Amino acid sequence: MIAVLRIGHRISRDKRITTHVALVARAFGADNIIISTKDQQIEDNIRSICKRFGGDFDIKTGADHKKIIKQWSGNIVHLTMYGETLDKSINAIDKKKDLLIIVGAEKVPPEIYEMANFNVSVGNQPHSEVASLAIFLDRYTGGKWQDKQFSGKIEILPNNTRKNVISKDT
Amino acid sequence: MIAVLRIGHRISRDKRITTHVALVARAFGADNIIISTKDQQIEDNIRSICKRFGGDFDIKTGADHKKIIKQWSGNIVHLTMYGETLDKSINAIDKKKDLLIIVGAEKVPPEIYEMANFNVSVGNQPHSEVASLAIFLDRYTGGKWQDKQFSGKIEILPNNTRKNVISKDT
Repeated sequence: MIAVLRIGHRISRDKRITTHVALVARAFGADNIIISTKDQQIEDNIRSICKRFGGDFDIKTGADHKKIIKQWSGNIVHLTMYGETLDKSINAIDKKKDLLIIVGAEKVPPEIYEMANFNVSVGNQPHSEVASLAIFLDRYTGGKWQDKQFSGKIEILPNNTRKNVISKDT
Repeated sequence: MIAVLRIGHRISRDKRITTHVALVARAFGADNIIISTKDQQIEDNIRSICKRFGGDFDIKTGADHKKIIKQWSGNIVHLTMYGETLDKSINAIDKKKDLLIIVGAEKVPPEIYEMANFNVSVGNQPHSEVASLAIFLDRYTGGKWQDKQFSGKIEILPNNTRKNVISKDT
């Protein structure tokens, strides 16, 4: 399984970025997201999308992140612009084990670097935890997210010229 | 050249997402970003990052997006969850031409679909324009963003255990 742990989320300031992190986790093959700060609105938003667009992605908010990290029995990846290169890291990670991916908002406490097995950078330039998570999951899954069937009530069919949406509610 | 055009940016609501879009454009190999709404703060933020982290990325805000699209002589890609699949699109785009990538915030006017040569989806699930731009540029450049030298005053060296930062100001 692949779990994403979002730490340092500030309800007002980070709501849209954290929502994007959660949606990327879902779309790119993670099984669930845990957000350390309690935030009912994000939970409701993500559950509403899952209900309409399908899949069995899970969300939990308000959790002791240190406890989760300590009790995790698989690999722990911390995404940070200071980490080892993506290519080297991806090759070093045993993909048979469960994976916890830590995605911080702004400054991350130093102990997170120590608790992670892999501190991984998606490039060493400042950009976005949303992009880092997407690119990391793309590489880690070998692009398999593209084949995933969500079987939702709403399905969008790829089209170069117009919106082509199937709604199974009607 | 690769230019990114951000349309529909609302200063208060979108400031952090648009900042992430701009930083992803810079980190993943675009030459510049044009934001249709005037927003001096984002301009200043991005210029400050360019000054410290290097490269010759350019930003302009407050521009008539329809004029830019009409006058563009190369390819125009519109990133949308309703578009053609990434793989098919990437193969169809002539990479010798200049490229304009349109990234919308929320609802995009229907004429944008018509003005674009390629409406491209990075998966057909709802997620994030930040992630879509990163994955699109990764595929379009064949991962070349990873080799780009920015030669900034601040340089971060990849490291699995600790922050390793070279500052050339001192």
